[in-house]
Amino acid sequence: MKEVYNFSAGPAVLPKAVLEQAQSELVNYQNSGMSVMELSHRSSLFETIIQSAETSLRELMNIPDNYRVLFLQGGASLQFTMVPLNLAAGKKACYISTGSWSKKAISEAKKISGVEVEVLASSEDKKFTYIPKIDREDVPQDAAYVHITTNNTIEGTTYYELPDTGNVPLVADMSSNILSVNYNVADFGLIYAGAQKNIGPAGLTVVIVREDLIGKVDVLSSMLDYSVFAKNGSIYNTPPTFAIYIAKLVFDWVKELGGVSKMEKTNREKASILYDEIANSHLFSSPVEASARSINNIPFVTGDKELDAKFNQEALAQGFENLKGHRSVGGMRASLYNAFPKAGVEALVAFMKKFEAENGGSK
Amino acid sequence: MKEVYNFSAGPAVLPKAVLEQAQSELVNYQNSGMSVMELSHRSSLFETIIQSAETSLRELMNIPDNYRVLFLQGGASLQFTMVPLNLAAGKKACYISTGSWSKKAISEAKKISGVEVEVLASSEDKKFTYIPKIDREDVPQDAAYVHITTNNTIEGTTYYELPDTGNVPLVADMSSNILSVNYNVADFGLIYAGAQKNIGPAGLTVVIVREDLIGKVDVLSSMLDYSVFAKNGSIYNTPPTFAIYIAKLVFDWVKELGGVSKMEKTNREKASILYDEIANSHLFSSPVEASARSINNIPFVTGDKELDAKFNQEALAQGFENLKGHRSVGGMRASLYNAFPKAGVEALVAFMKKFEAENGGSK
Repeated sequence: MKEVYNFSAGPAVLPKAVLEQAQSELVNYQNSGMSVMELSHRSSLFETIIQSAETSLRELMNIPDNYRVLFLQGGASLQFTMVPLNLAAGKKACYISTGSWSKKAISEAKKISGVEVEVLASSEDKKFTYIPKIDREDVPQDAAYVHITTNNTIEGTTYYELPDTGNVPLVADMSSNILSVNYNVADFGLIYAGAQKNIGPAGLTVVIVREDLIGKVDVLSSMLDYSVFAKNGSIYNTPPTFAIYIAKLVFDWVKELGGVSKMEKTNREKASILYDEIANSHLFSSPVEASARSINNIPFVTGDKELDAKFNQEALAQGFENLKGHRSVGGMRASLYNAFPKAGVEALVAFMKKFEAENGGSK
Repeated sequence: MKEVYNFSAGPAVLPKAVLEQAQSELVNYQNSGMSVMELSHRSSLFETIIQSAETSLRELMNIPDNYRVLFLQGGASLQFTMVPLNLAAGKKACYISTGSWSKKAISEAKKISGVEVEVLASSEDKKFTYIPKIDREDVPQDAAYVHITTNNTIEGTTYYELPDTGNVPLVADMSSNILSVNYNVADFGLIYAGAQKNIGPAGLTVVIVREDLIGKVDVLSSMLDYSVFAKNGSIYNTPPTFAIYIAKLVFDWVKELGGVSKMEKTNREKASILYDEIANSHLFSSPVEASARSINNIPFVTGDKELDAKFNQEALAQGFENLKGHRSVGGMRASLYNAFPKAGVEALVAFMKKFEAENGGSK
């Protein structure tokens, strides 16, 4: 088998143990004679899967009882619409703009009539290379929520300290650092995450929502209404059953490794190896302000587009997959999610040292 | 391995050859060192998968060039909202009500302000056991579309002859008989189908739409706008990559077996075995009018609830999975999709004969 390290920002590397278990039972799940993909979503076998997925996620994130866990479709992008539709009808919705995905969330919210969108702060002035600070006084206390992106996948910044929003619920797009950085769910009114980074395959979205925030208004469509899915245990219509099954296996894998705090510790160690190399290098640099640097998505550049391209080309030939930076930032980006192995960062750093030596970098 | 026949209405049985291929390359797709689930949706490996899926589907359904093929999320249920949002803003939307799913489509359309919903005909008077006829004169020629459900999964009826709607585009929920009954795409303005019956795993929706019908109006959300997905080759946000990969394998499997006409022929043969038994039986009967009987979902009853329950219990013990009828109809329902083997119908009929002999049925 070809040896590669997959730095993809998502869909991303999955735990080898999870893939091997899925493979072993793909045709015959628990001796049922059926694949998980063939199970009726109303069968007891699948009900056990989805309930066990929820139980494990509740345990991992220490989710309080007054929060509902929903397994939905449509990715974070559909949440950009569902959040204001469900929470901000006839109200003000506040956003902090920290990157491309925040901007999309804002632009989708603005399309909804009856929702007044206010951007409280933005770091676009410096190409989203930092996390803007806001004070409690900046938050209109009649707002339905303040929306943040806890980790900015493209720009490589992270909220390590949450803004104080007073009594206004914090809503977070946690797609790229859920289960990887240890947040306190009780600090949020709603958390959503596309699965394809730290949870499982693309096609599944996890929503964790305080139950008093939902079911207050008529929503345009049953399929966009959190309360419909909450009432039906996420099985209003046919859910993405196989993706939920893989998510369950990933949750169990994280539990086995010691939980989210342990994952964060390991992720910090992995990220440090790369950030230390960047700090010591005369060739590579990080475009991101030190205090905001993500441990999950680490962009770096040589400062020379041709050299970046050469690096990416040679890296790919060495089995470093998907290192090329997002087109809006350029350079390189290493996405180091939970399932990304430490050995992969070490190999990348060794390659960076070699590349620097060969390409005129000097200490 | 436990021998079962899976009569589930969806998620449903998949071709064994497809599952085995998916299993063989689950951890290492085409010697890439990665699972399909780990591929970036922007990688050339995944682009080849999604393009090949579209090419095969176009070939199988003989889709004209002026139709777009979209791979979406949210199931048919989200289409209940997307269809009127995209096609009927400020217009009249007509529906023919032929079952539980038609009713849901109607009820979701009614939630959208600016869309005037008109139900042209309904078979609810006889518990949806037939397909109501409409004439061209019944169709308001200023309507945005006439919506039908080509196959009614719960009630077991099928449109074998399409209504004449004049110049008004026909929109079809084809979830339970796409690729199984051979329709002419050019007869429709839009076709949609949840994948989990004849296409692949749950979590994927296929939409086939005539391109002049989309991109005409502002839609509430990018994620609900067909034209956004059409412009982006279904990769506006991260698509359900693994489900699309399985769909591609299923499309190739259908091609290998000879295409949709061949599948319909085989499906008719499988269904005949069961319908013949029902016709000859003094115990079992079909609640559905003969001309409308589905070859994909075949409900049958003994006329005695306790005997139905006994049948279902004994059938399950023999490895006939998911035969229990939908709670709204009761009795039994055999879903015989493309991947359901003929041997399974023969085994069921043998079991029915035995059950009838043991339980007082007489010829």
